[in-house]
Amino acid sequence: MLTSEQTAYLKSCRQRVGMDIVADILPFWLENGLDKENGGVFTCLDRDGTLMDTTKSVWFQGRWGYIASLAAIRLGSEECLDAAASAIDFIEAHCFDKDGHMFFAVTADGKPVQKRRYVFSECFAAIAMAEYSLAAEDPEYAEKAVALFKKIQWMLAEPGFLPPKFDFEARGHSITMMLINVANVLKQVSDDPCLDAQIDRSIHELKTYFMKPEFKTVLEMVGPDGEFIDTLAGRVINPGHCMETGWFILDIAKGRGWDPDLVKMGTTIIDWAWKWGWDEEFGGMINFRDCRNFPPQDYSQDMKFWWPQCETILAGLYAYQATGDEKYLEMHRKAFDYAYKVFPDEQYGEWYGYLHRDGTVAQPAKGNLFKGPFHIPRMMLKAAMLYDEILG
Amino acid sequence: MLTSEQTAYLKSCRQRVGMDIVADILPFWLENGLDKENGGVFTCLDRDGTLMDTTKSVWFQGRWGYIASLAAIRLGSEECLDAAASAIDFIEAHCFDKDGHMFFAVTADGKPVQKRRYVFSECFAAIAMAEYSLAAEDPEYAEKAVALFKKIQWMLAEPGFLPPKFDFEARGHSITMMLINVANVLKQVSDDPCLDAQIDRSIHELKTYFMKPEFKTVLEMVGPDGEFIDTLAGRVINPGHCMETGWFILDIAKGRGWDPDLVKMGTTIIDWAWKWGWDEEFGGMINFRDCRNFPPQDYSQDMKFWWPQCETILAGLYAYQATGDEKYLEMHRKAFDYAYKVFPDEQYGEWYGYLHRDGTVAQPAKGNLFKGPFHIPRMMLKAAMLYDEILG
Repeated sequence: MLTSEQTAYLKSCRQRVGMDIVADILPFWLENGLDKENGGVFTCLDRDGTLMDTTKSVWFQGRWGYIASLAAIRLGSEECLDAAASAIDFIEAHCFDKDGHMFFAVTADGKPVQKRRYVFSECFAAIAMAEYSLAAEDPEYAEKAVALFKKIQWMLAEPGFLPPKFDFEARGHSITMMLINVANVLKQVSDDPCLDAQIDRSIHELKTYFMKPEFKTVLEMVGPDGEFIDTLAGRVINPGHCMETGWFILDIAKGRGWDPDLVKMGTTIIDWAWKWGWDEEFGGMINFRDCRNFPPQDYSQDMKFWWPQCETILAGLYAYQATGDEKYLEMHRKAFDYAYKVFPDEQYGEWYGYLHRDGTVAQPAKGNLFKGPFHIPRMMLKAAMLYDEILG
Repeated sequence: MLTSEQTAYLKSCRQRVGMDIVADILPFWLENGLDKENGGVFTCLDRDGTLMDTTKSVWFQGRWGYIASLAAIRLGSEECLDAAASAIDFIEAHCFDKDGHMFFAVTADGKPVQKRRYVFSECFAAIAMAEYSLAAEDPEYAEKAVALFKKIQWMLAEPGFLPPKFDFEARGHSITMMLINVANVLKQVSDDPCLDAQIDRSIHELKTYFMKPEFKTVLEMVGPDGEFIDTLAGRVINPGHCMETGWFILDIAKGRGWDPDLVKMGTTIIDWAWKWGWDEEFGGMINFRDCRNFPPQDYSQDMKFWWPQCETILAGLYAYQATGDEKYLEMHRKAFDYAYKVFPDEQYGEWYGYLHRDGTVAQPAKGNLFKGPFHIPRMMLKAAMLYDEILG
């Protein structure tokens, strides 16, 4: 039961994200990011929206196709629906290599720039197609999304198709958790049994292989049977990633009538991530920790990036909705207030992405091949829905 | 002509590096880094020397083989000569793949961990073998070094042997400048004409393709004919790298009786690097700039790493020796005083590697796969020689 202060606070949060998504975040990308000549979206934008680099992130063609579709549904924006169609058209025209594996970056007009050994481009393209199918009420894109999802599963299973990064066998947290969310987005438009099967399999793998009670964390990389790899790379904790996994699992739990085992699993992961990631001195979620408390070796280890804050805001809300435990409202409030204190750019709009540990701006660009219209608008659109549900 | 103040200052620098190499840097690695069981060297050491990860950097087996050989020659250390032999034995036993291309990382006992698409492992192995040949007076290792050098040239020239990172053609500054130094180290023990030919070719490529007077810098990546690539990656300036290239060229100039064209080229590169890289507010050389002054996108862009400071100390000394221009003594003094103010760890010895822009420690480990016994001891050993020459 919410106190009147809590109700007033959540209403103010609802108002802020509801206003910012339509008056700040979407306009920034619609005005500065769209490629009117070739279609799709540019994301390498400087602080004021100036285009710094016309290289196109393939991840972001899909991520933006998904976000713009979601915005079209939630906000009824025709402009967003058109932008989503443009991104998906660009993907289909230019982003697949001959072997069906997608590129990582292409030129403005779609010539290959870089291909990498992962299937994240495919994952983002699949959620774009699924959400667009819903937004445009076009079942053809649901079919395309499911076909691409099955192709992703094939590429991951086919020995030798994706060259391994290391000469030893290992499992990655990223792709395991990502597939839960991709499948869940696709479930909106398809009842193909491969989707729930993947969700169950990913959850099983997270529980069996990646959750480490002895370190109270999810690890980013483990051996094929979950073996602890006692190296700098094997000990990496990415707390923002864990927050994201936590709310992905609670989102599944919600769809299964708040399945108690999944609620327990999701909130455990979130509790652990908060302990490892929240910076009690300066506020905010830091980037990396080492599970044996050695110094993390990623150069950005103590920085504050935009996306772990977004994931923590959502994780707090989902966990509160799942449990009614006030500690999660408090987690949400800390993450929300911190993010809104240091990330929004009052002068040119949108959020900075890369801050020092103390919250000062490390570099002010609004996007690159890794930052663009995804985590922030997703947080705002999903949080708005959760606030409405919680406030009743 | 040095003033008495300048003489006193340079003498104090000479004393400091001469003392630190024997009493601090070499003992730290000899005591904490040597793998007494398998041979070779560990570099993933925490602040106090604790081994954080037994993964072995192949770069560092070669880098340490070179440094330990150089120290054996300059300081007459038998312990260093043995350590160099151990590193080189480990390289020959475990670090070459079947195709002759070397690994990037291996386990403590030499099993492959990671292979990358470059030939830097080979470059460091070659300088280790050449310097060891000199230290141990064993011509067999000179022959091995030259054979490996020719293999490097073959791998770089053979289409398809090294998979390209990008889907467009590009040239990299790193390998171009690296080959100058590798060839110059090998020239101590071989008069094979391929060495001077490579030096001349690399210098030609730097002058023709990488030096950009319109931006007053050397760029890290250009097109096959030196075309400016106007993207975030194509605009990267790495000032520490440029300082290193500058003194590599002055080192060649010195060996050619201070060839005036090379002196001009080397000092121009150093002048440019100083302008782009020196932090007038906090001191120190920063990591990255963008030649069109957009925000650099590497997460460590505004940090202070140990090695650019070492390269700037050497570049200032070489440039002073080459020109007698006092501004380079001043450059050296600023870099030296800054480095000694913020990098040495008074409690556990050796230097920190990763500082924030303001000189505070970002993470305190003494080594990883990229930091270990190379830039700092090389600076100390080479600077000691230069101080002696300058002081007469």
